[in-house]
Amino acid sequence: MKSESVVVRVPGSTSNLGSGFDTLGLALQLYNQIRVSRAAKRGVQIISAISGPAQPKAAELVGEAAALFFKRTGVNQFGIAVESSGEVPIGRGLGASATLRTGVVAGLSALVYSRVNRQQVLDIVTELEGHPDNASPAILGGFTVSGRVARAVTCLRFQVSPKLKFVTLMPPFQVSTELARKLLPAKFSRADAVHGLNRAAVIAAVFASRSYEQLRGFFDDRIHQPARAKLVPGLPRIIKAGEAAGAIGGWLSGSGSSIICVTSDKTRAVADAMRREMPKADVRILRVDNEGLKVTFSRGIASRILAAQHQPG
Amino acid sequence: MKSESVVVRVPGSTSNLGSGFDTLGLALQLYNQIRVSRAAKRGVQIISAISGPAQPKAAELVGEAAALFFKRTGVNQFGIAVESSGEVPIGRGLGASATLRTGVVAGLSALVYSRVNRQQVLDIVTELEGHPDNASPAILGGFTVSGRVARAVTCLRFQVSPKLKFVTLMPPFQVSTELARKLLPAKFSRADAVHGLNRAAVIAAVFASRSYEQLRGFFDDRIHQPARAKLVPGLPRIIKAGEAAGAIGGWLSGSGSSIICVTSDKTRAVADAMRREMPKADVRILRVDNEGLKVTFSRGIASRILAAQHQPG
Repeated sequence: MKSESVVVRVPGSTSNLGSGFDTLGLALQLYNQIRVSRAAKRGVQIISAISGPAQPKAAELVGEAAALFFKRTGVNQFGIAVESSGEVPIGRGLGASATLRTGVVAGLSALVYSRVNRQQVLDIVTELEGHPDNASPAILGGFTVSGRVARAVTCLRFQVSPKLKFVTLMPPFQVSTELARKLLPAKFSRADAVHGLNRAAVIAAVFASRSYEQLRGFFDDRIHQPARAKLVPGLPRIIKAGEAAGAIGGWLSGSGSSIICVTSDKTRAVADAMRREMPKADVRILRVDNEGLKVTFSRGIASRILAAQHQPG
Repeated sequence: MKSESVVVRVPGSTSNLGSGFDTLGLALQLYNQIRVSRAAKRGVQIISAISGPAQPKAAELVGEAAALFFKRTGVNQFGIAVESSGEVPIGRGLGASATLRTGVVAGLSALVYSRVNRQQVLDIVTELEGHPDNASPAILGGFTVSGRVARAVTCLRFQVSPKLKFVTLMPPFQVSTELARKLLPAKFSRADAVHGLNRAAVIAAVFASRSYEQLRGFFDDRIHQPARAKLVPGLPRIIKAGEAAGAIGGWLSGSGSSIICVTSDKTRAVADAMRREMPKADVRILRVDNEGLKVTFSRGIASRILAAQHQPG
């Protein structure tokens, strides 16, 4: 008997991690749940948007995600109802859009195939997002390094130590990703371009080696943070305060507004130092999510959780 | 009793590996031997330069390396004789200068301390070279991702499968590193800068994961190869020929003139395809060197080989 309804739990994520623009991502233990159900009527019906400040574009995101799923898979369209809830805030650079898109695409995959092909979900969500940096950790969990050759997404995924704490400062205001992207310089000096590729490669290699202390000094981004500092007043000061309190390093999460400092043993001091710089912000201590999306099938009262699949390679 | 003479065997290396400019490196089973001996007279005496086409700047390189070793370590200067030989060709982008500098610095370290502090040698050789991309693999072996924060060099090192073959085409002409550096564009578009950091991070992550087939398509460099193609006529064609014959990918080694294609199972076909494009070139099938520098102490007839040290982290 086919499932009529599935719930997909998807982690929020931080991306860029300094200079790893459109490339590096890390899943956080901060989740949205997206329920996708077969509906009697054709078309997409949104039962509720993500909780918290309304996701203004939720209906559009869900509709586009469903349409691309049907287009890329060739499955005959059917009507769905989508219900979402959770704790990933909107417009804070924590991958809320990616959780919604991932929930819809993975949910449809589970309804149609009774399983989730993570590579296919990754390709579709990346196409929707325009870049894989939040899609990869949302789907696969852990620390991810992603790139595309034509439309195919390659993602290298690494487990991250649960000992690391990601002290996440969420300002009381949103940043528009589109606006934040328009602010980026059109040209980079050779020195800045080489600095950026160096930092992105070193940060990837340190996470792969799990030798996190070696990250110190390597979050000195010159690719996107300088231009975006005007959208998040105090950005350099807040990172500096976290580092002075013992953090290994800090960065603007995605295009903001959140700022994250990572630490293994100075959690309280780092959180206090960051909060002092922006008292109205919400500061949360998060750990990595190493699982990625999880699907729960509802068959009347029976339900089961799909075990996380390992990615190829 | 202190050693009076040591021999340092140092691997040649390829660097950049596409867009990993000044960042990525890989040691090859192609070696130079540098003998460093205490001499009666003060000053540096070069007994012979590296064999093959004379290394025009060998005396200068050796003198500078010895001077910086004494300056950074605070050791009282003493006279040395340096003798070098080996198979790493000059001006072919295979790290010949790094082998010579590494041999002198590591040799002095061994003479003075009876051991080699690899981190200290790496810091000094990187300062001499101006970048760590050949110094790291020469010293540590394997695949390396290196960056600097102020003067301190951080190097992440990964073992590489001996099954990989690096088909190395060495043209019958040299390329000057200085000239090749001057050719680089002063500015990069945002798309090219982001493409470069994406490729550098993905290549680093694939080597860290040892999932080498995932490298396909990611050597499409836009940072340095387009500008340098004029120094190595046929560069894109030779890489394409290797890839068409089954190579996982190919790149200009360092600033050239060598071109390398990597393959696990199409060695002969790749070598033949590359050679057809430049019949006068020397084509060699090389494997990774996973050991890095090796020091042999000479104490009269007794000699021993220092076991490779593990880098911290």
